[in-house]
Amino acid sequence: MTWNISNDGLTAEALLTQESIFALGNGYLGVRGNFEEGYAEGMNSIRGTYVNAFHDVISIPYGEKLNAFPSTQQKLVNGIDAQSIRLYIGEEEETFSLFEGMVVSYERHLHLDKGYAERLVHWRSPLGKEIKIAFRRLISFEHRELFAIDVRVEGVNFAGPVKIVSTVNGDVSNYTASNDPRVASGHAKLLSVRACGAKEEYAYVMNETTVSNLRMACVTRHQYSGRPQVHMETDANKAVFTYISTLDEPISFTKWNVYTDTLRHGENPLDQGFKLHEQLLGMGFEELAVLQKAYMDGFWKSSDIIIENDTSLQEGIRFNLYQLLQSAGRDKYSNISAKGLSGEGYEGHYFWDTEIYMFPVFLMTQPEMAKQLLVYRYSTLEQAKERAREMGHAQGALFPWRTISGTECSSFFPSGTAQYHISGDIAYSYIQYYLAVEDRDFLMQFGAEVLFETARLWIDIGHYYKGAFHIDEVTGPDEYTCCVNNNYYTNVMAKHNLKWAARSYEILKAYDASGLAALCHRLQVSQEEVESWQQAANAMLLPYDEEHGINPQDDSFLRKAVWDFDKTPKENYPLLLHYHPLTIYRYQVCKQADTVLAHFLLEDEQDIETIRRSYDYYEGITTHDSSLSSCIFSIMASKVGYLDKAYNYFTETARLDLDNTHGNTKDGLHLANMGGTWMAIVYGFAGMRLKESGLSLAPTIPASWERYAFRIRYRGRLMQIQIDKDGIQLELLEGEELTILMYDKQANLKVDQPVQKSLERK
Amino acid sequence: MTWNISNDGLTAEALLTQESIFALGNGYLGVRGNFEEGYAEGMNSIRGTYVNAFHDVISIPYGEKLNAFPSTQQKLVNGIDAQSIRLYIGEEEETFSLFEGMVVSYERHLHLDKGYAERLVHWRSPLGKEIKIAFRRLISFEHRELFAIDVRVEGVNFAGPVKIVSTVNGDVSNYTASNDPRVASGHAKLLSVRACGAKEEYAYVMNETTVSNLRMACVTRHQYSGRPQVHMETDANKAVFTYISTLDEPISFTKWNVYTDTLRHGENPLDQGFKLHEQLLGMGFEELAVLQKAYMDGFWKSSDIIIENDTSLQEGIRFNLYQLLQSAGRDKYSNISAKGLSGEGYEGHYFWDTEIYMFPVFLMTQPEMAKQLLVYRYSTLEQAKERAREMGHAQGALFPWRTISGTECSSFFPSGTAQYHISGDIAYSYIQYYLAVEDRDFLMQFGAEVLFETARLWIDIGHYYKGAFHIDEVTGPDEYTCCVNNNYYTNVMAKHNLKWAARSYEILKAYDASGLAALCHRLQVSQEEVESWQQAANAMLLPYDEEHGINPQDDSFLRKAVWDFDKTPKENYPLLLHYHPLTIYRYQVCKQADTVLAHFLLEDEQDIETIRRSYDYYEGITTHDSSLSSCIFSIMASKVGYLDKAYNYFTETARLDLDNTHGNTKDGLHLANMGGTWMAIVYGFAGMRLKESGLSLAPTIPASWERYAFRIRYRGRLMQIQIDKDGIQLELLEGEELTILMYDKQANLKVDQPVQKSLERK
Repeated sequence: MTWNISNDGLTAEALLTQESIFALGNGYLGVRGNFEEGYAEGMNSIRGTYVNAFHDVISIPYGEKLNAFPSTQQKLVNGIDAQSIRLYIGEEEETFSLFEGMVVSYERHLHLDKGYAERLVHWRSPLGKEIKIAFRRLISFEHRELFAIDVRVEGVNFAGPVKIVSTVNGDVSNYTASNDPRVASGHAKLLSVRACGAKEEYAYVMNETTVSNLRMACVTRHQYSGRPQVHMETDANKAVFTYISTLDEPISFTKWNVYTDTLRHGENPLDQGFKLHEQLLGMGFEELAVLQKAYMDGFWKSSDIIIENDTSLQEGIRFNLYQLLQSAGRDKYSNISAKGLSGEGYEGHYFWDTEIYMFPVFLMTQPEMAKQLLVYRYSTLEQAKERAREMGHAQGALFPWRTISGTECSSFFPSGTAQYHISGDIAYSYIQYYLAVEDRDFLMQFGAEVLFETARLWIDIGHYYKGAFHIDEVTGPDEYTCCVNNNYYTNVMAKHNLKWAARSYEILKAYDASGLAALCHRLQVSQEEVESWQQAANAMLLPYDEEHGINPQDDSFLRKAVWDFDKTPKENYPLLLHYHPLTIYRYQVCKQADTVLAHFLLEDEQDIETIRRSYDYYEGITTHDSSLSSCIFSIMASKVGYLDKAYNYFTETARLDLDNTHGNTKDGLHLANMGGTWMAIVYGFAGMRLKESGLSLAPTIPASWERYAFRIRYRGRLMQIQIDKDGIQLELLEGEELTILMYDKQANLKVDQPVQKSLERK
Repeated sequence: MTWNISNDGLTAEALLTQESIFALGNGYLGVRGNFEEGYAEGMNSIRGTYVNAFHDVISIPYGEKLNAFPSTQQKLVNGIDAQSIRLYIGEEEETFSLFEGMVVSYERHLHLDKGYAERLVHWRSPLGKEIKIAFRRLISFEHRELFAIDVRVEGVNFAGPVKIVSTVNGDVSNYTASNDPRVASGHAKLLSVRACGAKEEYAYVMNETTVSNLRMACVTRHQYSGRPQVHMETDANKAVFTYISTLDEPISFTKWNVYTDTLRHGENPLDQGFKLHEQLLGMGFEELAVLQKAYMDGFWKSSDIIIENDTSLQEGIRFNLYQLLQSAGRDKYSNISAKGLSGEGYEGHYFWDTEIYMFPVFLMTQPEMAKQLLVYRYSTLEQAKERAREMGHAQGALFPWRTISGTECSSFFPSGTAQYHISGDIAYSYIQYYLAVEDRDFLMQFGAEVLFETARLWIDIGHYYKGAFHIDEVTGPDEYTCCVNNNYYTNVMAKHNLKWAARSYEILKAYDASGLAALCHRLQVSQEEVESWQQAANAMLLPYDEEHGINPQDDSFLRKAVWDFDKTPKENYPLLLHYHPLTIYRYQVCKQADTVLAHFLLEDEQDIETIRRSYDYYEGITTHDSSLSSCIFSIMASKVGYLDKAYNYFTETARLDLDNTHGNTKDGLHLANMGGTWMAIVYGFAGMRLKESGLSLAPTIPASWERYAFRIRYRGRLMQIQIDKDGIQLELLEGEELTILMYDKQANLKVDQPVQKSLERK
């Protein structure tokens, strides 16, 4: 049963975590897995409904505000709550609750194959009435605005009165927590109700944010069996629909919620909500489920990974892929926030997580979705250029460390704005997209401009010192070492960025010289400038330490004292919650992969021995306090031949949220890590790489696995790769003949002609 | 007239600046030079009355609050306003105002010799009545709680009714400004009135702060000539005393305000205020002025500096010394805030400014006041130890970057908490005190403990790398380069600190072995630990760059690009208001003296050629955006023989506030720079140094000066040093025979036997 995430836990703590795990979404709309009927008095719940990118603007407070510190940030808004469905049974109107009476049986499922969540309850009321209830909830992939909840109630020893009360509530707040820098500490109430009422059979609420003045509407219709009494009541904030019947036969009750907002639906999202409902009239929940299943089939066709004989990991990887699918924005307004649409951690912001940890999954399995993520970044290019000016750069684009609508939302620059590598990461994703899809038109229309403007940033921030190109005072991925000179990761990514800005220029010149000329005219790019990019790339300083034979993380890294791990009690991790940043910066200690990540992304910059020694060195001083770390160490352990380590790191990533190993899944899922799981298999175990020279594989298989298999899309093809103890089977399922590299040797693939290869040992 | 700061400006902008320049204080109480009668409608005024160290506690807001970021800070509170005295003349009750009618003549004086401020006005009312008014205001050095205002009114063409209305107002707020990190942006209203009323002839107000629950009281008595009608009215916030008479003869009206507070006067400051008034009964303003003059005579006896034939500089240096006297705290609760008691800039916090820029003045002229400043720091030692623990140090004391009551108040650590040198600066001042006063008892009781605990901090923060002792991730004095490794200034100060911790141990062992044993027992200091301090001092890395032959500011400083000064428009200074800190950190550009300051404080660590080359190098990249910079460059220009430069920098410092050259004197005076003026003369032109080997001089004289003279106190002696074109005259005025070094040669001094020496050219 590895298409099904199941749970029967009912403790307060477990439920908070499950709210994230059972979250549903479709990239536009997301709902946490809250109970329709609510919880026991005093139980903590983070009740959340989110529309991707739907945000308010809030001010950022500072004790001392220095120049170019952003004064405002965006914050994902917890939207109108349409989850509530309460049930009352009997003359006594006993309230259905899993925390009263007796739960005879209880199951909860997330159907990864069917795309919905389900709760099956057999319940005995305090007065002894027994019923069975099934809740199914589904956020449609085909109808992005639709969130449907279906309830089925069946009497066991009871056939009396039943009342169902369904609410659409506009009186909502965001979740806050003080003293955890990863969760917002203020600004709970962001939405005001602008309209609330009933119209024909519809209940509706329209809210507006305080500063950004975005409006969100929810229009709800109820569909039900039997011949009940129904009525609707509304007040200033909510619409309440009541259904009264008797339980002489099973009752079916479906709540169709349609969410719209001003970003996508124009100035009157309420009207649009009513219109969208018209398209849904006549559809039943079962029909919706069929549509959803068809969509899921399409998704899994190219995205599924099979891990034989390890149910737990199989479950982990499928769950992660499913949640990635649910979280990815599909329009130019939205991207993938650090927690997807499953919680409010990091305030719904988009980070480099997208480009480096999640984009590759989509790129190789759902390239159209990958493209949308690039389009989003492109839509923020002007803001990135403005930000660069604000930061004192005469030219170029500096993408924000964290953002929703495109402006910098980071108030703590040492591990925020200083992470200039974000611009290189974004450039990297455009390059990868070109390598995987070979879409020159896209390169002309979007990619080249991003590459040119980011290249300009590096030219402006860097300088030549004794013939080498230096980049000073930036922070690499490792947030435990900030504001350093010549961070290896940043420099090597900048080099790649500069090289590919020049390379794109050549590619487009060959492809469409007049198109390129027009672009260069618009951007005022000259041949000379292009040469200066190549020159800086060639001269880029990539620090190397002779003594250790490794790439130091930055100029001064190896001269610092090594953190005293022996004297650090376990409860002091993650360090960032227990030590002042200065103290952490003072030592050789890494939160996450930094140089090791650079060696993954750009492996040809160093020989394998340097890469292996660097791996050894950094592994010894990395805490993996970031959820972005283990997957990279897994990939690189595979690369350097540490297969057990690769497997162990992988197991840490695969079930990070399912097992709540970081202890904060309640704030939302760790989406980047989920992408990392896929990467640990495809880039790690299977050794896939994507370069200008083509696609290559160098598979291994973990000792305890019998077989694993995955599919990838590449330049119009769909390929299946299966690896078992005996060897590798490659099969081209769709597309034209193709040559790839297998352990550096060419392998030719044709449809219907599976190719067998032997496994090579490292 | 160089004992008198005069002004007749009445523009709104000039008046704001003058509020600071004409501020009065006595180290306990301070009042800005506001007009008693108020201003014209709409004119901006920062009306301020401050009790040193009287603060509230306010929360510090953060966008992202990381571990050990202080959650609260202290803020100097603008106290009860007893400045108001309004005058109405004639039946029409025309209001006296310098912004109505006609100002026939107007003078304003700050009498540096007499210790009070004065305004002399000849005014014609809109209806033509002419009067002369003289305001004198005095904050007593002998009665620290007393702020007296004397008003004399004389008719010129008018002898009719006069009404004087004097207010004591508890409804006060602090000044705020947004977008200037140097001025607070929030928390205006900190005080609430707890009591307000009249009792016998006294008006009184008692206020309380919101969070710190400190109370401040002002008890006011009015003394006046003639036989007026008087009455007192009070409401919830203020007491209003009205005096009505006729102007047939000159009227004299004196307002005696006594300020008390819970820090110094116990739980009932109001009662104490009444009691203190009893001591003042029978005294007239003239008598008070005589007392003040006597105090000032005593001050100037050892503190005056004479600059012949340059009135402007003479005025500057005396004004600065006078303001230092007015600002210095005299008890264990208080110190000297960055703006003294003249304004609210930097929220009344104490910085390293005290130890490095102001303490030396007191040390060499008023050593008892210097001692009090050390006692204040000692009183915060426990908090410094706690802060060190909070910052992850297993041992030692880390003094806060900015504070009032002893806890860290800096919310921006890169140029706050990261300035670990503050602990070395404080240690330096204790060492200097020992060198100047040779007070071994004080060393035993206070100094040694501070030196031991700060030495422990350096041991904890530093580490050995290839045999050298490194200190990583700190910020030196130059706030344009933050969080670096092996800042030369920090390392050399730490070295001195460590060396003197060990040296103090030896001194006290010889002086009082059992006393030392008791101290070491209490602090758990062992002989071994003392040796580890000496060892770290010996091994301290003091970065040196062979290529330039200079000490680099830190490990990476010289590898950065030099700031593009040519492309920086004048209006972009100070850089901190126009560029993001990261941008500034990225370049070789200094806000202020850093290595150059280290070469001043510890000149024996480098040869003169290295010091000169370093001076040349850093001068080229220093913006002097900090008011702490020019004085040090002046001193070091003298040292390396650039006499014209020394003079030019000196002139920048001498009148910085009088001429408002930094444009922000309205927020308060630049106290550290004022100390720097004295230092530029005594340490700079006269080349004075204080070392374990004794006191030395190496005088020069600026080309345009005929003669300058100053006095210093040293180990119980009072000496006068006069330098003119022809030579130097040294005279021991008080104390035992003494040998000092003059240009490295011994000079023996006895009372009444002036010694003549020739000037040596550099």
